[in-house]
Amino acid sequence: MKEIKALSKILKEKFDISFNNEALLMEAMTHSSYANEHKEMKGIYNERIEFLGDAVLELTISDWLFRQFPHFQEGQLTKLRAQIVCEDSLSLLAKECSLNEYLLLGKGETLSGGREKPAILCDVFEAFIGALYLDKGVNEVQRFLNLVVIPKIKNGRYELITDFKTELQEYLQQNGPVHIRYELVKEEGPSHDKTFTVQLIVDGKKYKTASGKTKKAAEQMAAKLTMEELTKSSLS
Amino acid sequence: MKEIKALSKILKEKFDISFNNEALLMEAMTHSSYANEHKEMKGIYNERIEFLGDAVLELTISDWLFRQFPHFQEGQLTKLRAQIVCEDSLSLLAKECSLNEYLLLGKGETLSGGREKPAILCDVFEAFIGALYLDKGVNEVQRFLNLVVIPKIKNGRYELITDFKTELQEYLQQNGPVHIRYELVKEEGPSHDKTFTVQLIVDGKKYKTASGKTKKAAEQMAAKLTMEELTKSSLS
Repeated sequence: MKEIKALSKILKEKFDISFNNEALLMEAMTHSSYANEHKEMKGIYNERIEFLGDAVLELTISDWLFRQFPHFQEGQLTKLRAQIVCEDSLSLLAKECSLNEYLLLGKGETLSGGREKPAILCDVFEAFIGALYLDKGVNEVQRFLNLVVIPKIKNGRYELITDFKTELQEYLQQNGPVHIRYELVKEEGPSHDKTFTVQLIVDGKKYKTASGKTKKAAEQMAAKLTMEELTKSSLS
Repeated sequence: MKEIKALSKILKEKFDISFNNEALLMEAMTHSSYANEHKEMKGIYNERIEFLGDAVLELTISDWLFRQFPHFQEGQLTKLRAQIVCEDSLSLLAKECSLNEYLLLGKGETLSGGREKPAILCDVFEAFIGALYLDKGVNEVQRFLNLVVIPKIKNGRYELITDFKTELQEYLQQNGPVHIRYELVKEEGPSHDKTFTVQLIVDGKKYKTASGKTKKAAEQMAAKLTMEELTKSSLS
């Protein structure tokens, strides 16, 4: 099957993924409309494997969020996960991984623009995750997500519902009011490309320092780093 | 904490589980109402770990169903999973594992019958799964579920939406009509405790033989075994 061969080449080059069992990749890439038109597929298409991939994605993302944001409450984790594991987000990921190009789609579905439909693309991404999990295990899925999803979370593509400054303030004020301020300690570079460095000070005590391209970004990062320090020490 | 010590003992005896880090078990067993009343808990209770446990349970059950029922469509897998991973089912499991007895609950919640509330019990079961996953990994969770959940699925506690006879019939008739019959080949034992053995015959060709306490049970089993044989050979 030339589509699967071509996709395999891309997966190897872009993500260093090579399937041991290409039949799993083929199953993941087969939409029901294609299987209906091709009797030789014996009724095998990607819905079963998508059922599994959906659960694999849910766990790998949950695990990462749980460890990455030790000070987030369950509600915040759930909201953030929902933004990552949703149709819009996953269909974009399918395109970034070229899955849309090599998806095996029936003629009617192709003509009606199926290759661009978010629901179909989201399903094929989940099915791909399911195939990767069956072929190589959960660690390989995590490695793949570290390449394609995690950097986007870190870069703020999925808006963090609660910002770190508010987060820190709520955390610190659990036992009564505190005075939090962000002191600008450095401002460098030419006016069109400045870097700001701020230090977080709570009730006169100095906490983390962080830099950013805007004062607000630097403050957010200082709040995040301080939060991490505080939650780490309260757990140990 | 005496509750956690007592629970640890039971977990060891009943399931051969011993936590390396009992703080995780403690976190899983702490309801928010207890943390609110006990400042020494530092605001740690089981909702975050339940967030993780929910996803762990979803994957481990999905994985098992996917492999166990190779001929089930996605819709059937989803329905069966929903019956297993639902509040009613999980709250019963929490009780079977004695989690309700050792759950750390606030005074008000205890007085209002919190130890019997399905939502609270379901959450503590998921949180327990999350703690086990963090402490010992996914294989230990699978081993635990093999003890407490899988036998119930096999024994039909969760009703299989499609019965195997219908399943087989639909599968075999994909390419046109076939003649399926179940032949009684043996009937043994005293009248109050009979065992029936049937053989499945499709278009005159003999397939699997199976036994059961009723003819219907034997037929269902023969259909299941035949289905497994057929789907296995069509995949290889």
